[in-house]
Amino acid sequence: MVKIAVDMMGGDDAPGIVLDAVKKVVEDFKDLEIILFGDKTQYNLNHERIEFRHCSERIEMEDEPVRAIKRKKDSSMVKMAEAVKSGEADGCVSAGNTGALMSAGLFIVGRIKGVARPALVVTLPTVDGKGFLFLDVGANADAKAEHLLQYAQLGNIYAQKIRGIQTPSVSLLNIGTEAAKGNTLTKKAFELFEKDHSFNFQGNIEAKTLMDGNTDVVVTDGYTGNMVLKNLEGTAKSIGKMLKETVMGNFKNKLAGAVLKKDLATFAKKMDYSEYGGSVLLGLDGTVVKAHGSSNAKAFYSAIRQAKIAGEENIVQTMRGTVGGKDE
Amino acid sequence: MVKIAVDMMGGDDAPGIVLDAVKKVVEDFKDLEIILFGDKTQYNLNHERIEFRHCSERIEMEDEPVRAIKRKKDSSMVKMAEAVKSGEADGCVSAGNTGALMSAGLFIVGRIKGVARPALVVTLPTVDGKGFLFLDVGANADAKAEHLLQYAQLGNIYAQKIRGIQTPSVSLLNIGTEAAKGNTLTKKAFELFEKDHSFNFQGNIEAKTLMDGNTDVVVTDGYTGNMVLKNLEGTAKSIGKMLKETVMGNFKNKLAGAVLKKDLATFAKKMDYSEYGGSVLLGLDGTVVKAHGSSNAKAFYSAIRQAKIAGEENIVQTMRGTVGGKDE
Repeated sequence: MVKIAVDMMGGDDAPGIVLDAVKKVVEDFKDLEIILFGDKTQYNLNHERIEFRHCSERIEMEDEPVRAIKRKKDSSMVKMAEAVKSGEADGCVSAGNTGALMSAGLFIVGRIKGVARPALVVTLPTVDGKGFLFLDVGANADAKAEHLLQYAQLGNIYAQKIRGIQTPSVSLLNIGTEAAKGNTLTKKAFELFEKDHSFNFQGNIEAKTLMDGNTDVVVTDGYTGNMVLKNLEGTAKSIGKMLKETVMGNFKNKLAGAVLKKDLATFAKKMDYSEYGGSVLLGLDGTVVKAHGSSNAKAFYSAIRQAKIAGEENIVQTMRGTVGGKDE
Repeated sequence: MVKIAVDMMGGDDAPGIVLDAVKKVVEDFKDLEIILFGDKTQYNLNHERIEFRHCSERIEMEDEPVRAIKRKKDSSMVKMAEAVKSGEADGCVSAGNTGALMSAGLFIVGRIKGVARPALVVTLPTVDGKGFLFLDVGANADAKAEHLLQYAQLGNIYAQKIRGIQTPSVSLLNIGTEAAKGNTLTKKAFELFEKDHSFNFQGNIEAKTLMDGNTDVVVTDGYTGNMVLKNLEGTAKSIGKMLKETVMGNFKNKLAGAVLKKDLATFAKKMDYSEYGGSVLLGLDGTVVKAHGSSNAKAFYSAIRQAKIAGEENIVQTMRGTVGGKDE
């Protein structure tokens, strides 16, 4: 039995989508228990494996992260994180304020001993539909080479446990494939990666081949990772917009567009990284999953399932024994 | 009359596309003279405003940049750069080895006095087809905030002179729009930009809204710029590939695809930044234009025209008086 703490109040369409997702996920998995934190006036479920706890506060999207976590002691997000810290829950999921959730992770759940900086990891789409792990996408904007090395170790374990890849290939994001390319940070990280034999380092990867599906884990600093993530999102959106204009441009095209519509929608879905589940703060002493702010019930369901697998696979315990242990 | 030095031997399809472009550009512009550097056995033009000079060497795409510039003294690229340095030519254009051309710019043409680091600028597409200037895309991977400030000043002048925008809006690429967002570099650069009144600073811009067409000049460091450029290129290519697979997936879609074909090609062209001309090394004491390695004759023609306008508009002289002068 795995127990996951869930923030009912976070996300653009909360609590509706959270309630729908929780209802379905406890039906689908008989070995799952949920502790749900939120406003009792909006709670409408009744299930033996859902324990509801009322919270008088909620953290808003525009709240200043650290301040919100410190002040809103009875918020659903703080209470959820405390359930992980106390060991009551195996992991937690929220679609709320990203910064606040990172702060809750850092200050309430806490880091694994020896991990200098946690990293936010997402699964990004590839042309072959397989996807790859990408970290850090924004937990730490000023990373050192030593931090990148730990991200590689954390990502390696996560790929093994969550994605079931025995020997994941790990690459370093850079502006050239040769060892001598890049800035001071990536050059130094390359050296550290080469010396470390706890993961299968495949060298540098360029941003233009990210989606080709040649690697399982791609490591970068939080500034660059966030930049690439948003650029990917923006480019896909802009292309979609221009494409739509092309298709809607005249009657003949409109007819052709109608024929393609369903397959184009499938395609757009393949491009949407929120379909691949939530992002996870790796390096914390507990599983913290961030569902996309604009999650629908299906995406939130995936995020809960992700936290469930992390619990079953004892990811945090493995990280404690390998990544954390080394640096003490 | 403007005189442009051209490297006949650089680029994937040189000298064919260079000769075609030069032939057309001297026909189209009566006020343009070309000095063409290359292998005499491959030269086949004859025009009163083309002066041909034979060179016994050429720099290859795989040559180590600095070494190639120092050793291949009689290469078409070195000779071309020397013509700019001596004042014989107003600017130069090459589709050859990017690193070698940057080295030729730095070591032969030289920097404007007071400019710490030259920056490579490209024009990127926007949804509205207007485009924006983006720099630095890779001249300097480890930039300081002071360098970014000079890029903003250089980009501002370039946008005024080449793109004819009276008061260009200048933005700083960052991972959030608020002033406090980013890494140490962007936070410091934001402060410097705010204090400088020589350009119209519009604050931070995120990578996801780059293509929305809200700004004229976007400034970043060479590492991030190169990353975003390659990511844009790669994402567009991957989407194109996946889209093609969708359209070719079944007979019904193929028919619909055939209807859309021509408009989709126009659309793909709009996305291709090499269509917007070459990239330019700003901050050098002469105009150095880099045409894309895979340029066709039309793209190379655009690059020559770009160098011609830069010469007519006295861009380098203007930069000397403003950016360079300040820091001496």
